[in-house]
Amino acid sequence: MRPSGRKLDEMRAVSIDTNVTKHAEGSCLIRMGDTHVLCAATVEERVPPFLKGSGLGWVTAEYGMLPRATTTRMRREATAGKQGGRTVEIQRLIGRSLRAGVDRVAMGERQITVDCDVLQADGGTRCASITGGWLALRLAVNKLMKAGDIKTDPLIAPVTAVSCGLYAGQPVLDLDYAEDSEAGVDGNFILRGDGRMIEIQMSAEGATFSRAEMDQLVGLAEKGTGELVDAVQAAAKG
Amino acid sequence: MRPSGRKLDEMRAVSIDTNVTKHAEGSCLIRMGDTHVLCAATVEERVPPFLKGSGLGWVTAEYGMLPRATTTRMRREATAGKQGGRTVEIQRLIGRSLRAGVDRVAMGERQITVDCDVLQADGGTRCASITGGWLALRLAVNKLMKAGDIKTDPLIAPVTAVSCGLYAGQPVLDLDYAEDSEAGVDGNFILRGDGRMIEIQMSAEGATFSRAEMDQLVGLAEKGTGELVDAVQAAAKG
Amino acid sequence: MRPSGRKLDEMRAVSIDTNVTKHAEGSCLIRMGDTHVLCAATVEERVPPFLKGSGLGWVTAEYGMLPRATTTRMRREATAGKQGGRTVEIQRLIGRSLRAGVDRVAMGERQITVDCDVLQADGGTRCASITGGWLALRLAVNKLMKAGDIKTDPLIAPVTAVSCGLYAGQPVLDLDYAEDSEAGVDGNFILRGDGRMIEIQMSAEGATFSRAEMDQLVGLAEKGTGELVDAVQAAAKG
Amino acid sequence: MRPSGRKLDEMRAVSIDTNVTKHAEGSCLIRMGDTHVLCAATVEERVPPFLKGSGLGWVTAEYGMLPRATTTRMRREATAGKQGGRTVEIQRLIGRSLRAGVDRVAMGERQITVDCDVLQADGGTRCASITGGWLALRLAVNKLMKAGDIKTDPLIAPVTAVSCGLYAGQPVLDLDYAEDSEAGVDGNFILRGDGRMIEIQMSAEGATFSRAEMDQLVGLAEKGTGELVDAVQAAAKG
Amino acid sequence: MRPSGRKLDEMRAVSIDTNVTKHAEGSCLIRMGDTHVLCAATVEERVPPFLKGSGLGWVTAEYGMLPRATTTRMRREATAGKQGGRTVEIQRLIGRSLRAGVDRVAMGERQITVDCDVLQADGGTRCASITGGWLALRLAVNKLMKAGDIKTDPLIAPVTAVSCGLYAGQPVLDLDYAEDSEAGVDGNFILRGDGRMIEIQMSAEGATFSRAEMDQLVGLAEKGTGELVDAVQAAAKG
Amino acid sequence: MRPSGRKLDEMRAVSIDTNVTKHAEGSCLIRMGDTHVLCAATVEERVPPFLKGSGLGWVTAEYGMLPRATTTRMRREATAGKQGGRTVEIQRLIGRSLRAGVDRVAMGERQITVDCDVLQADGGTRCASITGGWLALRLAVNKLMKAGDIKTDPLIAPVTAVSCGLYAGQPVLDLDYAEDSEAGVDGNFILRGDGRMIEIQMSAEGATFSRAEMDQLVGLAEKGTGELVDAVQAAAKG
Repeated sequence: MRPSGRKLDEMRAVSIDTNVTKHAEGSCLIRMGDTHVLCAATVEERVPPFLKGSGLGWVTAEYGMLPRATTTRMRREATAGKQGGRTVEIQRLIGRSLRAGVDRVAMGERQITVDCDVLQADGGTRCASITGGWLALRLAVNKLMKAGDIKTDPLIAPVTAVSCGLYAGQPVLDLDYAEDSEAGVDGNFILRGDGRMIEIQMSAEGATFSRAEMDQLVGLAEKGTGELVDAVQAAAKG
Repeated sequence: MRPSGRKLDEMRAVSIDTNVTKHAEGSCLIRMGDTHVLCAATVEERVPPFLKGSGLGWVTAEYGMLPRATTTRMRREATAGKQGGRTVEIQRLIGRSLRAGVDRVAMGERQITVDCDVLQADGGTRCASITGGWLALRLAVNKLMKAGDIKTDPLIAPVTAVSCGLYAGQPVLDLDYAEDSEAGVDGNFILRGDGRMIEIQMSAEGATFSRAEMDQLVGLAEKGTGELVDAVQAAAKG
Repeated sequence: MRPSGRKLDEMRAVSIDTNVTKHAEGSCLIRMGDTHVLCAATVEERVPPFLKGSGLGWVTAEYGMLPRATTTRMRREATAGKQGGRTVEIQRLIGRSLRAGVDRVAMGERQITVDCDVLQADGGTRCASITGGWLALRLAVNKLMKAGDIKTDPLIAPVTAVSCGLYAGQPVLDLDYAEDSEAGVDGNFILRGDGRMIEIQMSAEGATFSRAEMDQLVGLAEKGTGELVDAVQAAAKG
Repeated sequence: MRPSGRKLDEMRAVSIDTNVTKHAEGSCLIRMGDTHVLCAATVEERVPPFLKGSGLGWVTAEYGMLPRATTTRMRREATAGKQGGRTVEIQRLIGRSLRAGVDRVAMGERQITVDCDVLQADGGTRCASITGGWLALRLAVNKLMKAGDIKTDPLIAPVTAVSCGLYAGQPVLDLDYAEDSEAGVDGNFILRGDGRMIEIQMSAEGATFSRAEMDQLVGLAEKGTGELVDAVQAAAKG
Repeated sequence: MRPSGRKLDEMRAVSIDTNVTKHAEGSCLIRMGDTHVLCAATVEERVPPFLKGSGLGWVTAEYGMLPRATTTRMRREATAGKQGGRTVEIQRLIGRSLRAGVDRVAMGERQITVDCDVLQADGGTRCASITGGWLALRLAVNKLMKAGDIKTDPLIAPVTAVSCGLYAGQPVLDLDYAEDSEAGVDGNFILRGDGRMIEIQMSAEGATFSRAEMDQLVGLAEKGTGELVDAVQAAAKG
Repeated sequence: MRPSGRKLDEMRAVSIDTNVTKHAEGSCLIRMGDTHVLCAATVEERVPPFLKGSGLGWVTAEYGMLPRATTTRMRREATAGKQGGRTVEIQRLIGRSLRAGVDRVAMGERQITVDCDVLQADGGTRCASITGGWLALRLAVNKLMKAGDIKTDPLIAPVTAVSCGLYAGQPVLDLDYAEDSEAGVDGNFILRGDGRMIEIQMSAEGATFSRAEMDQLVGLAEKGTGELVDAVQAAAKG
């Protein structure tokens, strides 16, 4: 029934390469099916003004898409002169989600910026960015710990994300673009590896949903993020 | 336990004035406690380019806050040269939510823009904007129906919204600013008068949440939006 | 002869509510007929860089209009990405006019920002903003004096403003929108309660004017601002 | 008493070169003392959208200042990314003033844009721009009449402008920078060669003014603009 | 003597993958040493307004760099609100260079946009962008020819580019970042596979150069671009 | 054969006025035929942040064009909200070229900004800007030396520039607009008075060029810049 032939609760194939750029403190290329995102973490020994002297660390994120990551070419945001509303929403979500997986006291007063750049898009780019972004963060933190700059691991548990939705009336896991563009209800679920929930965004796009359907989608998300936790932990070990 | 002395599942006092500006096709001033939002609906006999000739209507929204609506003065967005990320997120949410309550075929090929401007803020401005925005929309549609421009009522059921969150570890309904700024988890729930869900946004702000807590917050939201449906229906009747 | 039936030298009804927002140090809602402006004064214990260490205070103003304050909806300036030329002109005028009523030594090295936001427009919004803005300033200064932060009253006399013009060839006082859009000559007159003139702007819009007509308009303005001085002084006393 | 040694009612030396650029349809370099403005009129056989099919012409103006036209270098507005508030005010004033000297029916449905660029500034740049701008307009219109594109002269009478103010308590004509920066009251007076008034802007800068002082300044302005009318008419004849 | 141990006239290793994104009509990932650029060509059946109805095709390019493509993170241009001067210069150069290799009549009235996005930078990114950009263009044109949309091959000969400069007083070929940041003279040479020159940009950065040195650098560039022509022709064949 | 009747290796008439504005530390109006550029140098006793405490001086440049400097009016960049790509390229080139003629240690830790504003354009504006810009710089440095603020002359030799190109298949010196708009190959050559080369930019515009043609154009440029060196040295002496 799904355009890809997947089962209702089946994720796309996940493939991850780590340390893909020589400059970033942590980086990975995450592929969830045909969605490919390059995530790079930058460590800086400074924090935003509102945190100066607080002893707390800061994690932030930026999101971008290459103009031809999509079926038809999109206008480059640098040319348009600003980031679009969708971009701003996504990068705020990524940053907020990653921070929920960090002990900012243990991290120390420094900033890590996670850049998530979509090289190829096929649905679920914000979820792939969060999952890959956490891995880039993990690798950067490993480097800081190895160097002795951080003593206690500030990362509580992996932060991963998956989209679920109602497609042709059925709850499905990990929507690709063909499904996403037709889905009446679309949700993004960001969970932590210890089972705690970080963010849930469920949104009607034409259809609405009942409380029972909400529960089904949450269930699928718990399954999917569980699999992603295994994937990023394996990748982090190399 | 709540700073306002309210019970955990108690809303703030809601008060609504309708037709508060002489120019708009529909308007209201909604007060949820000390949060005051002026909502104005503008009808135009044109639609965005992507809908031309489709026979479908369009509902969109814009959101703003007067500089001194808040405790300390905020920079005017027109002076800053752009709407902030928070503003963009909120106005996209308002538009999306209202559209989920509209039969866009019955509405006909026209556009209604709902402006929500916060005169005074005390938490929950986006929810008050959705609820008040729906009422402005209702009044504008009434005018179109009375004039015979629309034959069948395109509004399916009232769209209302309320925030719930975990404050001091307890699930509470309709957070005011004192609660909102301390809450570890904050959610916005947009429901339709027929019990269908339109959008759920739950977000960790420091704390995370369990699935059981999620369920409690959804329950509070169902209670709160029920009360708001009664309020806007009463106001619409005048 | 006037669309409203008023006499040539008759002002619109003026109505003023004070302390209309709970956050601002001083505020009022001024209504000159169907023109409604919300004025809010914010006190900050800092001055612009060019005044640091001078011992002088600073008064500045910002002006805005809700998108549907007007007959047809105007584009929101925050969306357009900048304030229009008309807005910039008006807010510079408001700030300049208010400063002419202030003893900046007595005020002390602090800044008061007066936000004038038009909720509903029917001509004369800049004049209503100045008059209401002065009242918001008066209330904020009263608060500072009550707290002992200012010893000597820095406000010299009320600053009020009115528009006059040639409508259908006749000099008329306090133009409303119906008159303003037809007037061949339009002037804004800002006077101080002690009879001194602060700013005169007379401008041909299609017609021109003779020196005799100029004198007639100045005379009307003296009458109108006199009435406004009484109104704001009464409102300030509560 | 005046820094320049001029009498109270004495203008600076005016010198005008015409046809100073080979591309513009009309142009001049006007020097009022050390204030030098290059004015160039461009004729286009199109009008702004709101005038299409109206049969009416349009005159508009733009104003700029070279970065080192002033004592200390100012930031280039193209680099800053926008025109400042002062620039916007001035160019709107120039356009409005010139239009008051034009019979827009006789002009025919075309647009003339007058660019006024200050090469060197010493006070009174907006007034020099209006006077020089009118001459550039005159020369461009002459060209159109010579070519037979316009049959009846659309220029009613010369539009000229001068600043007057209270300097050291005395009313003075044609302020230079040394006076302008010290003047307590500063006014710009735009008059038409037939004695009609187009725009009066009198503004307190620290001091205020009485009605009697207002009258004195208007008298000086009538004298000054009379001399400028002679100067531009002589220059137009070549 | 060179930091990399290369000979004076030795290029870095070149490696090219083709068809690396599923959406673009032509694409490649070109690696010149540690400089990695993703090039994607987009075909559109429209041309810019100035070419409508001319029968001529258009090739244009855009250039970007991921924020952490460099040693220290650079600000994202979409966040900064505009493309920097360097970016604008580079993308204009890429477009101009590629057009010099195209018979725009044979191409037909369509546009091909070549996006060059630097994933990792180590000097010479603009040259790698031109060379890789030509290959993406080649692959997109192949697709159009295969589909019968273009009959005669519009690509005259490969366009390739290389940088040469004076490093430690010696002329060297294909500067990497370590050399580029120290070089006193730096040149970019864009040549066509038939030996014709398209663009030469030689620039003093601290040092200047003699005519004899200029000749040496041109000689190196002829050698280097010859090798690149072989590489892209091999890659184009698959 | 040339539209102007000049010989292939003949420059346009060069005419230079110095000290044309009373405010700038150094200034000139350079005319190369009908191309007229006003160049003004501003001295400031500060340097950009990256040079603070380095003991090194800085020379930078900005470039602009009056809207009607060209045959048809161009949009004012301040109105457009940014400098165009061409403007940014040119002003970076001017600054880079002038710096190559300066001993920045001898100059001392101060900044000189050279503004080049085109009053009338007829081809070759960037070259005229460099040549005139050097002269403005020379005059400003003379003033600093006379005042004893600089002890050793930091200007190595005059920096001058000329354009050469292939017009109708022939190499020609100093292209005017009629030639420039038709030329298949266009080059800008910036040389120093001591015969050293600073920058060479040769660019195909439709045609390409051989190495032999490149050599011919370089030869013409050496002749042309030699003549310009004489001109600016004569002008500098007064």
